[in-house]
Amino acid sequence: MAAEPTAHELIAKHRPTLDQALEAIRTRAYWSPHPEHPKAYGENGSLDMAAGKAAFDALLGTRLDLDQPGTDGWTGGEVSPYGIELGVEYPHADIDVLLPAMKAGQRAWRDAGAEVRAVVSLEILKRIADRTHEFAHAVMHTSGQAFMMAFQAGGPHAQDRALEAVAYAYAEQVRTPDTAQWTKPQGKRDPLVMTKEFTPVPRGIALMIGCNTFPTWNGYPGLFASLATGNAVLVKPHPRAVLPLALTVQIARQVLAEAGFDPNLVALAAERPGEGIAKTLATRPEIRIIDYTGSTAFGDWLETNARQAQVYTEKAGVNTVLVESAANYKGMLANLAFSLSLYSGQMCTTPQNLLIPRDGIGTDQGHKTFDEVVADLARSVDGLLGDDTRANGLLGAIVNPDVKARVDAAAGLGEVALASREITNPEFPDAVVRTPVIVKLDGARKYWEGADDEAAYMNECFGPVSFAVAVDSAADAVELLGRTIREKGAMTVGAYTTDAGVEAAVEEVCLEEAAQLSLNLTGGVYVNQTAAFSDFHGSGGNPAANAALADGAFVANRFRVIEVRRDA
Amino acid sequence: MAAEPTAHELIAKHRPTLDQALEAIRTRAYWSPHPEHPKAYGENGSLDMAAGKAAFDALLGTRLDLDQPGTDGWTGGEVSPYGIELGVEYPHADIDVLLPAMKAGQRAWRDAGAEVRAVVSLEILKRIADRTHEFAHAVMHTSGQAFMMAFQAGGPHAQDRALEAVAYAYAEQVRTPDTAQWTKPQGKRDPLVMTKEFTPVPRGIALMIGCNTFPTWNGYPGLFASLATGNAVLVKPHPRAVLPLALTVQIARQVLAEAGFDPNLVALAAERPGEGIAKTLATRPEIRIIDYTGSTAFGDWLETNARQAQVYTEKAGVNTVLVESAANYKGMLANLAFSLSLYSGQMCTTPQNLLIPRDGIGTDQGHKTFDEVVADLARSVDGLLGDDTRANGLLGAIVNPDVKARVDAAAGLGEVALASREITNPEFPDAVVRTPVIVKLDGARKYWEGADDEAAYMNECFGPVSFAVAVDSAADAVELLGRTIREKGAMTVGAYTTDAGVEAAVEEVCLEEAAQLSLNLTGGVYVNQTAAFSDFHGSGGNPAANAALADGAFVANRFRVIEVRRDA
Repeated sequence: MAAEPTAHELIAKHRPTLDQALEAIRTRAYWSPHPEHPKAYGENGSLDMAAGKAAFDALLGTRLDLDQPGTDGWTGGEVSPYGIELGVEYPHADIDVLLPAMKAGQRAWRDAGAEVRAVVSLEILKRIADRTHEFAHAVMHTSGQAFMMAFQAGGPHAQDRALEAVAYAYAEQVRTPDTAQWTKPQGKRDPLVMTKEFTPVPRGIALMIGCNTFPTWNGYPGLFASLATGNAVLVKPHPRAVLPLALTVQIARQVLAEAGFDPNLVALAAERPGEGIAKTLATRPEIRIIDYTGSTAFGDWLETNARQAQVYTEKAGVNTVLVESAANYKGMLANLAFSLSLYSGQMCTTPQNLLIPRDGIGTDQGHKTFDEVVADLARSVDGLLGDDTRANGLLGAIVNPDVKARVDAAAGLGEVALASREITNPEFPDAVVRTPVIVKLDGARKYWEGADDEAAYMNECFGPVSFAVAVDSAADAVELLGRTIREKGAMTVGAYTTDAGVEAAVEEVCLEEAAQLSLNLTGGVYVNQTAAFSDFHGSGGNPAANAALADGAFVANRFRVIEVRRDA
Repeated sequence: MAAEPTAHELIAKHRPTLDQALEAIRTRAYWSPHPEHPKAYGENGSLDMAAGKAAFDALLGTRLDLDQPGTDGWTGGEVSPYGIELGVEYPHADIDVLLPAMKAGQRAWRDAGAEVRAVVSLEILKRIADRTHEFAHAVMHTSGQAFMMAFQAGGPHAQDRALEAVAYAYAEQVRTPDTAQWTKPQGKRDPLVMTKEFTPVPRGIALMIGCNTFPTWNGYPGLFASLATGNAVLVKPHPRAVLPLALTVQIARQVLAEAGFDPNLVALAAERPGEGIAKTLATRPEIRIIDYTGSTAFGDWLETNARQAQVYTEKAGVNTVLVESAANYKGMLANLAFSLSLYSGQMCTTPQNLLIPRDGIGTDQGHKTFDEVVADLARSVDGLLGDDTRANGLLGAIVNPDVKARVDAAAGLGEVALASREITNPEFPDAVVRTPVIVKLDGARKYWEGADDEAAYMNECFGPVSFAVAVDSAADAVELLGRTIREKGAMTVGAYTTDAGVEAAVEEVCLEEAAQLSLNLTGGVYVNQTAAFSDFHGSGGNPAANAALADGAFVANRFRVIEVRRDA
């Protein structure tokens, strides 16, 4: 057993990374220990591209036995959005057996303290990072993301968000010292002297409910924040995106066991088709924390019904980009075209409503009418996706038939400025690949024509659908932006303007309605992407999400501090 | 207007205090800037004892005009538990006018930043501290606390808790820098460079619902945490304890106005008799934060119904002291006697259930039977309260008829070990003053006799009522302690033991069930008292309260951080 890492060795190995993460969340400068380039892998124990692909292929058609207590059968049946059947079987759990078993190891995990929990978490992340290429395929073939995006967003970026959560969790727990001596003067009498011990204690078992589109990126922050604060974590993946989280659970269990902890501190709750166990799990008294990414309807259900738990939700929103004027018209078009196309718009951060004054906008290329702006954007998207290989590499596959149906229906919502095209994926002919559709709507029409433009743009239309909404003025746009955030929520807001007054008005409405704002992006950063350690994902202050990734509030209530005091 | 403090002057004046508070919450060593001794007041602008009394007397029978928008009448009618009618009238608010007015100044308050908000909050506290003697009478004649307790708990200790909340709020807001430059390498290409601005933004209007027994001590943490994080605060006092909070609001409005902010950032919502406006206010969409101290029933109602708000509640609990053995028997008896007597047990932290093995306990005075321990404790209480002047000084007055009714009914719950006595208060002959009653119950009787002992000791009996519960063993006591915390909640747990195994078992159950533990207190610190900056009040992890005073979780979700990023 000499190969097993001791807590001391893990501290020596990972403390420098933890310290760098702590510094990064303080300065919010760029930092990441997880390389984004596929070729950066293959050394220091990590799988290279070929080995990662081979590892993924070897998983197909197998049974992933996690050796969990209460396994009462097997379930599976994932079909990749790219058409292949994964054929992986996962344990199905009798939760009346599994949940008590998960509690058994909590005391030792609690007593290990914040630093050991952090470095064990970092060791889990290291093992995941070593298998980034394998995870990339697992994410690709569950989410439908194109390989490069599955690799980056599902790999290093997800690992960054996990590490960020661990850093916040550690920082929060060590704000209170382990011990204190308290000496209160009593005038001429002897002082009152007490010794005090402070222990961070977990809330109980945390439930992480995964999503289909970003199983690791959206799942890791809650999973690692809960684990690093001493809780056991039950992972309930989306039935169509089990594999990346099952691998994560397997690795976590291995690392926990090797470090001398109970592997049942992390477990998987895969469900049978149609079983719908999330509601059952979410209201179990043992579940004290829930992290969820998905529909507003179920997020609201959780917030209303899972009253025994702290509930962190990321739900639907309607993201707006206000286009008032442009100092770099071509850069704006290129930037927006990429934002609309990436992963076929199947991101909670993809812009949906492009608010453009009906009288057009001023740009460095001269005045552009509303129709010209929309046509130029359509052309930019067409240009970006004109080559099928490049298009497949950007778009990925449509994740489910509902998204496809929305794309098909969008053309009926208004004048189509850019029609969605079908693209063939030569490698995966069964993949459903669609380019974005852009529909023109009128933001004023609601007032006099009884048209349903407002019904279209004031609801989330998840997928590669965006609306070019004509507005009367910049002020009208700012008003509509504010109302959209307030009523529907927003994960992101973008704006293009050269007018200081408009810029200030957009900033003010984003501060007032609590939405994250990207201004005049024309380069290689896109409104739908955020960087861990620096950018907040969501604000937690508008209806799209009740938490931000990541901040103190995301971790502070996952544990409590218990004090034992004695006369000294 | 030269006398008005500028932000710069307030920073110079209060930053050292803020820094000391920040250091104290980090080390949790003893610290307080607010003197506990009545004679420490009278210099540096503070009112001395006589001036404070005169100021209070001058308030009686007056109208406290706060110059609030939407004042549509006047209300009042407080009658002191000591019998005098205060006769103070307060503005009654049309909330449809007041709430919008409270929002008007939020933008400037937000833009002032965390440091200015902190020092303005500290200036409010300084003005309150200067009038501690006046507040002492206001607290005494609303809560029924004896003068010295009203002075200390309602004055310096409440001010300490307020300052602690301001310190946590400040620390939380400055964890993210105001600005950051983010430079991401791109191999041989130019790096991606962005500038980022981060702004803490308030959630909206906070509602602080005050309680009858500790209007300032329990009210200030939420009030100041919300204000310091940029929110406007509407103070809804308990109808029988308006004056201390009305004075607080008046001072806050004066300081805000003098510092150049909108005084409507803090306002009072006094209610007419029977109006019950808390439910109406709590579910208004403008109210985004609620702090509440009071009954479990209304706390649960708020958590269930005020879904638009962050809700922080302190509710009822059942506090236990486990008496297994004693190294200092006399010290234990004296300490417990004081804990049971202070403010007639009308503290959320007063012990209720004393769990004592039926076979007795080992002590430094030899073995003591169950009956001896209970009789000795009864004698200690009698001794402590034998002198009427001293008794009045410790007990204060019974706050309302419900408490008196519970004291009267307690004698019917079991064998009375110590009967409650009426005490006459010569200065206030109408005051209802009662000594504690101790009733013997049997923790095992539930199992075979169908007796209602368990119904008595497993429910909060707020007031000077405690139960000496015979248990089979230390293990039985620990089990009952755990079950009590889990099912009923506990603000405090005490234990006396010389046995390392029992001590460890009690510690473990407190860690497991998230309750704050005081071990073997025999000196001048009592289980029902906590010191700001060092001790946590409640844990937020058991049913007695969903938040602790104070920690990161108490402040972190009162604001959100909004990021504006641009290509650099």
